[in-house]
Amino acid sequence: MPKDSYLVGLIGSGIGPSLSPALHEREADRQGLRYLYRLIDIEVLGVPPQRVGDLVRAARELGFDGLNITHPCKQLVIEHLDALSPQAEALGAVNTVVFEDGGRAVGHNTDVTGFAASFARGLPDVSLERVVQLGAGGAGAAVAHATLTLGAERVTVVDAMPERAADLADTLNRHFGRGRAAAASPDRLAGLLGAADGIVHATPTGMAAHPGLPFPAELLHPGLWVAEVVYRPLETELLRTARALGCATLDGGGMAVFQAVDAFRLFTGREPDSARMLAEFAALTDVMAAPQ
Amino acid sequence: MPKDSYLVGLIGSGIGPSLSPALHEREADRQGLRYLYRLIDIEVLGVPPQRVGDLVRAARELGFDGLNITHPCKQLVIEHLDALSPQAEALGAVNTVVFEDGGRAVGHNTDVTGFAASFARGLPDVSLERVVQLGAGGAGAAVAHATLTLGAERVTVVDAMPERAADLADTLNRHFGRGRAAAASPDRLAGLLGAADGIVHATPTGMAAHPGLPFPAELLHPGLWVAEVVYRPLETELLRTARALGCATLDGGGMAVFQAVDAFRLFTGREPDSARMLAEFAALTDVMAAPQ
Repeated sequence: MPKDSYLVGLIGSGIGPSLSPALHEREADRQGLRYLYRLIDIEVLGVPPQRVGDLVRAARELGFDGLNITHPCKQLVIEHLDALSPQAEALGAVNTVVFEDGGRAVGHNTDVTGFAASFARGLPDVSLERVVQLGAGGAGAAVAHATLTLGAERVTVVDAMPERAADLADTLNRHFGRGRAAAASPDRLAGLLGAADGIVHATPTGMAAHPGLPFPAELLHPGLWVAEVVYRPLETELLRTARALGCATLDGGGMAVFQAVDAFRLFTGREPDSARMLAEFAALTDVMAAPQ
Repeated sequence: MPKDSYLVGLIGSGIGPSLSPALHEREADRQGLRYLYRLIDIEVLGVPPQRVGDLVRAARELGFDGLNITHPCKQLVIEHLDALSPQAEALGAVNTVVFEDGGRAVGHNTDVTGFAASFARGLPDVSLERVVQLGAGGAGAAVAHATLTLGAERVTVVDAMPERAADLADTLNRHFGRGRAAAASPDRLAGLLGAADGIVHATPTGMAAHPGLPFPAELLHPGLWVAEVVYRPLETELLRTARALGCATLDGGGMAVFQAVDAFRLFTGREPDSARMLAEFAALTDVMAAPQ
């Protein structure tokens, strides 16, 4: 009898507003699966991030099939796993743990594969010769790996913290080959964007709590494509400004959905309907954006 | 929004064949609830029974709404709970833990309430003046509490281990009042049954692994009612023999179902359809009894 019952969850801090339970459970309902997605919020529980290993071990004992992992546990969880996917290994970060039948806990990174899937779908024909990426944090590391995996020739990472940009560029060069990545300080952004094919935005600016543009609007030009990581709201000021200029754009919703698509596939071995999950996501974010 | 998603499980040893997942999940499906019932088999996990407290704590952290508890953890779990129901307190055994909204873990015993409900339904008009109970183990303790709660005037507990029978009788007398319970050795069974209204059978004899009768058939007489705790098979040799004599009988299925009915109500706050769960149980045991 094929397995048709799945228990999964998300471990992280401050995850109350996560859309993952609804995204996963609704897709599972449509596939006729018994599927429960629980939020395990270490902030609510008062559990320090260093105890993520205990939570993962307990989840396996209590019958979980897998877990999503988010801030601040994506790196901390690694030492508690039995194996890593190539993306998780390269990035040094795990956002999905699968408990395999034999008992192994395997770490994956569907932020990387999710961004790649969203980019390939939303910006299929753009040039990837010279890419600028703003933001070298956790999300930035994942999308830079994805962009290079997609075939970007050179990614220049810009971050307000120069060391963080340099570290990410070093990691990328070690993994993808010398010269594929570079670091630059924000004061060079004007020159970089003038000569770039596109920009990936991976800082929190544009989120409800951090409104505004991550750099002056004058630096945009119609020849640039603009890919956004922020998805709350889906229409950031950056995307609105870029679209008005005629830029090809990609919103952050695709990455959010495809990381869930990829996690669902890993948890269940079944192919989710990504178009359906995208529509569900749009409906969920519409509801949230509506006046209270 | 009323809660409509429930995660529960059963902690115990060698629980693979348990019917609880099917009983709970099918009833929940009919009520339109998202409901997952996981088996947490400490034998399979290689976890010693003394670690039940860790499992209970972890289950609460990972979003479980409650747990059923079975052998060998029904006593061990008590020190890890915040409060006990009157039945669990009196019996010193817990088979159901509810994680309340405020964070408290409360222990209940639906073996007691389940046997009482089954008895009241299946043998509503029988006399309870003089009851003999065979078996003073864990199930025996639960059903003796239930029989006295139902109003039995005197329960005489017979067990091959005299000390176990005496201990149970002492406990019952402390809780229900002096003279309500007594202990006796198996060689007195003939005399006891000759003068009794009914017998509750609470030993493993009659299960597939322990076939046969728990005492000679000649000790039965048409004036006795016979209540069985064994439910695999539903029709034990004791019940078959008693029914042929014209005794009123109660099979063990009712207790098995009503303990689940009561646990479902505790976990969800919703009223299960006990007739539907009884029918489901009969169908499930029919399937299992069919030739392989």
